[in-house]
Amino acid sequence: MSSVTTTPFDDLSPVLRAAYRARSAAAELAVLPRAAKDDALLAVADALEVRTREIVEANAADTDRARAAGASDTVVDRLTLTPERVRAIASDVRDVVALPDPVGEVVRGSTLPNGLELRQLRVPLGVVGIIYEGRPNVTVDAASLCLKAGNAVLLRGSSSAYASNTALVRAVRDAVHGAGLPADSVQLVPGETRESAQELMRARGMVDVLIPRGGAGLIRAVVEQSTVPVIETGTGNCHVYVDEHADLDTALAILVNAKAQRPGVCNAAETVLVHRAVAGEFLPRALAALTGAGVRVHGDEAWQKAGAAAGIEVEPATAEDWETEYLSYDLAAAVVDSLDAAVQHIRLWSSGHTEAIVTRDTAAARRFTATVDSAAVMVNASTRFTDGSQFGFGAEIGISTQKLHARGPMGLPELTSTKYVVTGDGHVRD
Amino acid sequence: MSSVTTTPFDDLSPVLRAAYRARSAAAELAVLPRAAKDDALLAVADALEVRTREIVEANAADTDRARAAGASDTVVDRLTLTPERVRAIASDVRDVVALPDPVGEVVRGSTLPNGLELRQLRVPLGVVGIIYEGRPNVTVDAASLCLKAGNAVLLRGSSSAYASNTALVRAVRDAVHGAGLPADSVQLVPGETRESAQELMRARGMVDVLIPRGGAGLIRAVVEQSTVPVIETGTGNCHVYVDEHADLDTALAILVNAKAQRPGVCNAAETVLVHRAVAGEFLPRALAALTGAGVRVHGDEAWQKAGAAAGIEVEPATAEDWETEYLSYDLAAAVVDSLDAAVQHIRLWSSGHTEAIVTRDTAAARRFTATVDSAAVMVNASTRFTDGSQFGFGAEIGISTQKLHARGPMGLPELTSTKYVVTGDGHVRD
Repeated sequence: MSSVTTTPFDDLSPVLRAAYRARSAAAELAVLPRAAKDDALLAVADALEVRTREIVEANAADTDRARAAGASDTVVDRLTLTPERVRAIASDVRDVVALPDPVGEVVRGSTLPNGLELRQLRVPLGVVGIIYEGRPNVTVDAASLCLKAGNAVLLRGSSSAYASNTALVRAVRDAVHGAGLPADSVQLVPGETRESAQELMRARGMVDVLIPRGGAGLIRAVVEQSTVPVIETGTGNCHVYVDEHADLDTALAILVNAKAQRPGVCNAAETVLVHRAVAGEFLPRALAALTGAGVRVHGDEAWQKAGAAAGIEVEPATAEDWETEYLSYDLAAAVVDSLDAAVQHIRLWSSGHTEAIVTRDTAAARRFTATVDSAAVMVNASTRFTDGSQFGFGAEIGISTQKLHARGPMGLPELTSTKYVVTGDGHVRD
Repeated sequence: MSSVTTTPFDDLSPVLRAAYRARSAAAELAVLPRAAKDDALLAVADALEVRTREIVEANAADTDRARAAGASDTVVDRLTLTPERVRAIASDVRDVVALPDPVGEVVRGSTLPNGLELRQLRVPLGVVGIIYEGRPNVTVDAASLCLKAGNAVLLRGSSSAYASNTALVRAVRDAVHGAGLPADSVQLVPGETRESAQELMRARGMVDVLIPRGGAGLIRAVVEQSTVPVIETGTGNCHVYVDEHADLDTALAILVNAKAQRPGVCNAAETVLVHRAVAGEFLPRALAALTGAGVRVHGDEAWQKAGAAAGIEVEPATAEDWETEYLSYDLAAAVVDSLDAAVQHIRLWSSGHTEAIVTRDTAAARRFTATVDSAAVMVNASTRFTDGSQFGFGAEIGISTQKLHARGPMGLPELTSTKYVVTGDGHVRD
C-alpha cells in the first residue's frame, strides 16, 4: 500500500497532494513540545477574534445561498456565524489550550526479565480526516483538537459552508504558520465534490483515520466506502428503562429530561420501556408530563390504552419507531415484562450509544449495566450526560458508537495512538 | 445497519446465521466471571490431549491433499499437526488460563463535580472474526484468547486445513459446552469459499472486528473489502540503523540476529542502513558476518563496492528491495548520510512494524525514537523482540501495524473494548 507514497508528487491528485503535505506536517507536529502547540492555538483564538468581520462576511455568502435555495431555518441556523458565535469558537480554542497534552504519556511500562526496558508511549495518530456537514464551527473545533494532540487534519466540509470554511481555515493557517508551525497542519480538502470525499476515503496509508460527523446517511456512506480506518460516531437511539423498583418521581424527571431537554442531539432519549408492574401507575403520569413538555408518544397497546383513558393521543408504534432516532419531540414507548425483556429490546434496536435504568434495586442496576452493550449505561441519571464536557474531558471530537479504538465521548487521548520504545544494551534473541 | 438483525433467522445465509449465534453466545460470555472462562479453557486443553489421535488423523487428510497438490515443504510443515504439536497447543491454552482476565478492569474513573460517579470498564469486544491461512494452530490460539477475553469467535480458516480445523473446533466446542458455556462461542465459518469470507467482511453490526492473519495479499484483501472494522496485522519491513556513534560489535550482533535468527517471521529485519561515517569499517565486517550466516545482500553502490573489495557478491538494490518483506535470507542494504536520512528512508518504505537503532549517543537514540513512526522502536536491541511473549503479555493474537485501537503486539486487553457506567441519584441536565 506504499504505492501512493512512491508516486511522484506532481502526478498526485489535489486531494492526495493535500494528504501528502499533511503527512509532512504531521511528522513535524509529532515531536513538538506542548508549549509550541499551545502557543499556536492561542494565536488561532486571537486570529479568529481579530478576523471576525472577514469570517462573518464570508459566512453571509453561504447563508444567502442556502436561503435562496430554500434551506430550512434549522439548516440556516446551523450554518450561521455571528460575531458572538465566532467569539465562542475562539473561547473553545482557549479551553483546548488548557487541557493536558496526551502525547508522551507512558501508558504502560516495565523492565523485562532480560533487562530490556519497555515503554508504551502515547503518540499522535498522524493525519486525521474529518468529513462533516454544514456546521462551520466543526472546522475550528476539529482543527484545534487535532493540533493539540499533534495531528495534522484534513477537513472535508460541506459545499454549503464553503465560503465560511475557507475564511476560517485561512485564519487558522495564518495563525499556525505565524506561530512557527507548518501551515499544512490544517487543510481544507480541495473540491467539495463527491469524488473528493471518495478519494479521501480511499487514501489508506496517507490518512490514518477518518471521523465522519453528521447525519446517519453520511456516516453510513463513509463506513461502507472507506478503506481508511473509520470511527463511527453519533447515531443515538437511546433508551430509558423504568424498572419495577423505580422511584417513579425520579423516573418521570429523568424521562422528561432525557427526551425533551434538547431533543435534537444524539444523547436524547428516543424510547422509554416501562416494567409492567409499575405501568398502571407510571403511564398516566408519564403521558401527562410528556404531553406537557410537547412530546408526541408512539406507543404499544398498553400505552395506547393509557392514552385513551387519559384523553391523550398515542400513535400506534411500529418496528420503525423502535428503530428510529427521531431527533425531535417524538418518543417510542413500550411496556415490558421484565428487566431482561427490556435488555433484549435494547440489544435488538439500540444504536449502542446510551441507555438508562431508573431503579432503587442494586441487583437490577447491576444486571442492567452488565448486560446492556452500549457505550454508556446510566443508573438513575439522564441519558443527556453522555458528553465529553459532562464527563470532564474538556472537549470532544465526537461520540463513538463502535467498539474499536474509542467508545463513547472522544477527547484528546482518543486522538492518539501508541508506540513501544524498547531500550537495551545489545540485546539479541536466543 | 440493524437490517441484518431484523431479518428472520431462517432467511439468513449460513455465515450470517453463524454470526447471529455468535452474538447470542457473546452476550452470555460477556457477564461470566473469570473462573467460568478458565474452567472452560482447562477443559479445552484436556480435550485436545485426550483427542490428539482424532486430530492428527484429520490433519493427515489435509497434509496428504496438500502434498498431492504439490505444496512446498514449508507449506506442508505449517499445516502439519503431530502429537507433540497438539500437546504444545494444549499447553498454550493452559498459559492463557494463567493470564489475568482483562474484563471488568476500571480503566478510568472519577466522581464528577455534580456527584455523578463515572467508571470506564473493560468489556469484551463481542464477536471477533479471524480470517487466516493454512496454520491449524491459529484455530486454537485465537479461540482461547478470544474466549478468555469474553468474546465469541468466528474462525474462517483455509480450505487446505479444513479437516484439521473441523476436528480441532469439534474438540473445543465439546469441551466448552461440557463446561457449561455456549458451544457457539467458537464456530468455524461455514464454507471455505471466497464468498463466505466476503460475507464475513460485510457483516457489519453482527461482527465487531475482523483480524486477518497471514500473508500481505490476504491482509490487503480484507482491508480493502471489509465494512467490519479491521485490525491490520503482521507485515514487517523492519529496519536496523547503524548510527555513526554505534558500537560496531553490538551493531554486528544485532544485525545478524535481527536478519538471520529466524528470517521467516514478521519481526525479522529486511533492511540495514549504515551511517556513512562508519561504513568504511562496518560494511566489510557486516558482509563477512552476514555471508557466514547465509544472508544474501542486495545493496546500494557503497555496499556493492564493499562486496567487490571483499569478493562477496552484492546484488544491486532497486526500489523493490527497499519495499520488500523478504521473509528469507535476503537483506536490503544502504549507506545514509545522516540519522535523519535513515529516518526519511524508514518513513518512506517501512510497514510501520519495528525499527532499531544501534548507537551509544543518547541524543541520537532520543531523536530516532521520537521521529520514527512505527509500532515499536528498539534502541540497541534486535527487532526480533517485538512479540507478545517477549513483551510479557503472555500470548498475542497478532501484531498490529495500524494506529487505531491497537499498535504492536496485541494481548488480551487489545481484545476488549470499554463501556462507561455512570451512577447518579436522579441526576438530570439543566
